[in-house]
Amino acid sequence: MSLLVVGSVALDSVETPFGIKEDVLGGSATYFSTSASFFSPVNVVAVVGEDFPEPHLQFLRERGVNLDGLTREPGRTFRWKGRYGWQLNEAETLDTQLNVFQSFTPRLPDSYRDSRYVFLGNIHPELQSQVLDQVKGPRLVAADTMNFWITGSRPALLKTLERVDLLFINDSEARQLSGEHNIVLAARNILAMGPKRVVIKRGEYGALLFEHDHVFACPALPLAEVFDPTGAGDTFAGGFMGTLATSEELSPAILRRAMVMGSVMASFAVEKFSLERLREIDRGLIRARFSDFKKLTHFEDLGPLED
Amino acid sequence: MSLLVVGSVALDSVETPFGIKEDVLGGSATYFSTSASFFSPVNVVAVVGEDFPEPHLQFLRERGVNLDGLTREPGRTFRWKGRYGWQLNEAETLDTQLNVFQSFTPRLPDSYRDSRYVFLGNIHPELQSQVLDQVKGPRLVAADTMNFWITGSRPALLKTLERVDLLFINDSEARQLSGEHNIVLAARNILAMGPKRVVIKRGEYGALLFEHDHVFACPALPLAEVFDPTGAGDTFAGGFMGTLATSEELSPAILRRAMVMGSVMASFAVEKFSLERLREIDRGLIRARFSDFKKLTHFEDLGPLED
Repeated sequence: MSLLVVGSVALDSVETPFGIKEDVLGGSATYFSTSASFFSPVNVVAVVGEDFPEPHLQFLRERGVNLDGLTREPGRTFRWKGRYGWQLNEAETLDTQLNVFQSFTPRLPDSYRDSRYVFLGNIHPELQSQVLDQVKGPRLVAADTMNFWITGSRPALLKTLERVDLLFINDSEARQLSGEHNIVLAARNILAMGPKRVVIKRGEYGALLFEHDHVFACPALPLAEVFDPTGAGDTFAGGFMGTLATSEELSPAILRRAMVMGSVMASFAVEKFSLERLREIDRGLIRARFSDFKKLTHFEDLGPLED
Repeated sequence: MSLLVVGSVALDSVETPFGIKEDVLGGSATYFSTSASFFSPVNVVAVVGEDFPEPHLQFLRERGVNLDGLTREPGRTFRWKGRYGWQLNEAETLDTQLNVFQSFTPRLPDSYRDSRYVFLGNIHPELQSQVLDQVKGPRLVAADTMNFWITGSRPALLKTLERVDLLFINDSEARQLSGEHNIVLAARNILAMGPKRVVIKRGEYGALLFEHDHVFACPALPLAEVFDPTGAGDTFAGGFMGTLATSEELSPAILRRAMVMGSVMASFAVEKFSLERLREIDRGLIRARFSDFKKLTHFEDLGPLED
């Protein structure tokens, strides 16, 4: 079923203990749509500048991503520059240049308006709301957000959250948004803001899915080499939402599969810089890694007679 | 099968955001043996002082714990005083009084010498080695250690590790012991020191079991109220080793069950101060919580025809 994403398409400069890359392909909509494209067609709403390399767009089109809602505007593309230390969980932002993103107003082509699944990438919550004004009765609306909006645009964020079914959020940002240190209390607090489900991302420790009466935990795959965590969260969301979009129903089983598939896709994304690893993989490798997650987490029931 | 533990039996004073408790029952051998006693008989080697309350020993005896190897010496019992902030993962030690533990020399009663499973609690690595000198061909020797020995008694610790089959260790201490930041590389490094298996404990993020060619991840149960993390690691080890001791074979399935049962027992331990919660539970509650872990982590395979 149709899947819509609004977010950034960017040129990133990233420094990790393993090297430096400048002006490489990045952005929340880019990671999300590439990841989701292994499961479902994706409609992108985003903006790039005159300097954005055409081959990047060609790559997305070849992955079956619909770019009818991507506009090219006068000026430079959104740029983000960040650095990771050995503690690869959190980036230090060195520079952000909004450029064409500064005046971005998401406009949905008519063909996007009946998208059944919607992912509101990490942009201003008012822009997220504007996207929702343009879609007709989606089955599930998911959103991402960050500390910048939590502290700087809290009223607008709370308004958007009332219209969101599922929130993806980092653990530190979940604590910040809720004012609760304990992660279970933080999740409950966020569920009271509107979303029926919240996915709390914990980097190398995996992710938790909270619904009102139950919780699912998926670990991250322990990797000997994590090169670049940039985009891991959006890649997770892409695998998650792409998996949901393959299903007719929102059952607990499909939500759990979505959590694992999100973790699978994120485990690939961090293995190389930018989207390099996502360019190499195929559905066979994805299925094999899904099995790796099964091996990583599976254990047998206690027998009925053992006591 | 028989299970031996050497470690501390202590009086703890603990401060958490939820309250203060003074001179309550604690110690690695206490938490371990109480936890393991739900699965297996346990033989304890430890020392207490003249001031140690007899009812505490009576409690352990009633749990089926064999105290033939516990001696009462002139002087005061080992005391530890610590504080936890909201970040409940790590304690700040405020005071340590070794007292009778200062001159502790573990001596095994004859009846202990053919114990099949051995847990060397977090004591000086030379004392850990002295215990191993006194046991005859155990099936599996596990040990715990901490930063104090890693930095202060590294040569003795490395000698002990050569004789250990399985090491329980915190993630920060695994990094310290190995000199590797990445947890997979840290585990591989530790496996090269002697142990065939290493369990890396990550507090609220759960635990990882590494063997040479595979890894198992068990999350911690997300709890809305964590009152006191003291003893959670030893309680985990008790559930783990107690579970192994119920089995004739060391199969991958029983090791995974041991990881989950360790997590089950630790999830109880932190719900109240000291051993209060472990005093209340029974095998029915333990089985129910094991099922909770299944619900927390279970997901279905991809169907063979889905692609």
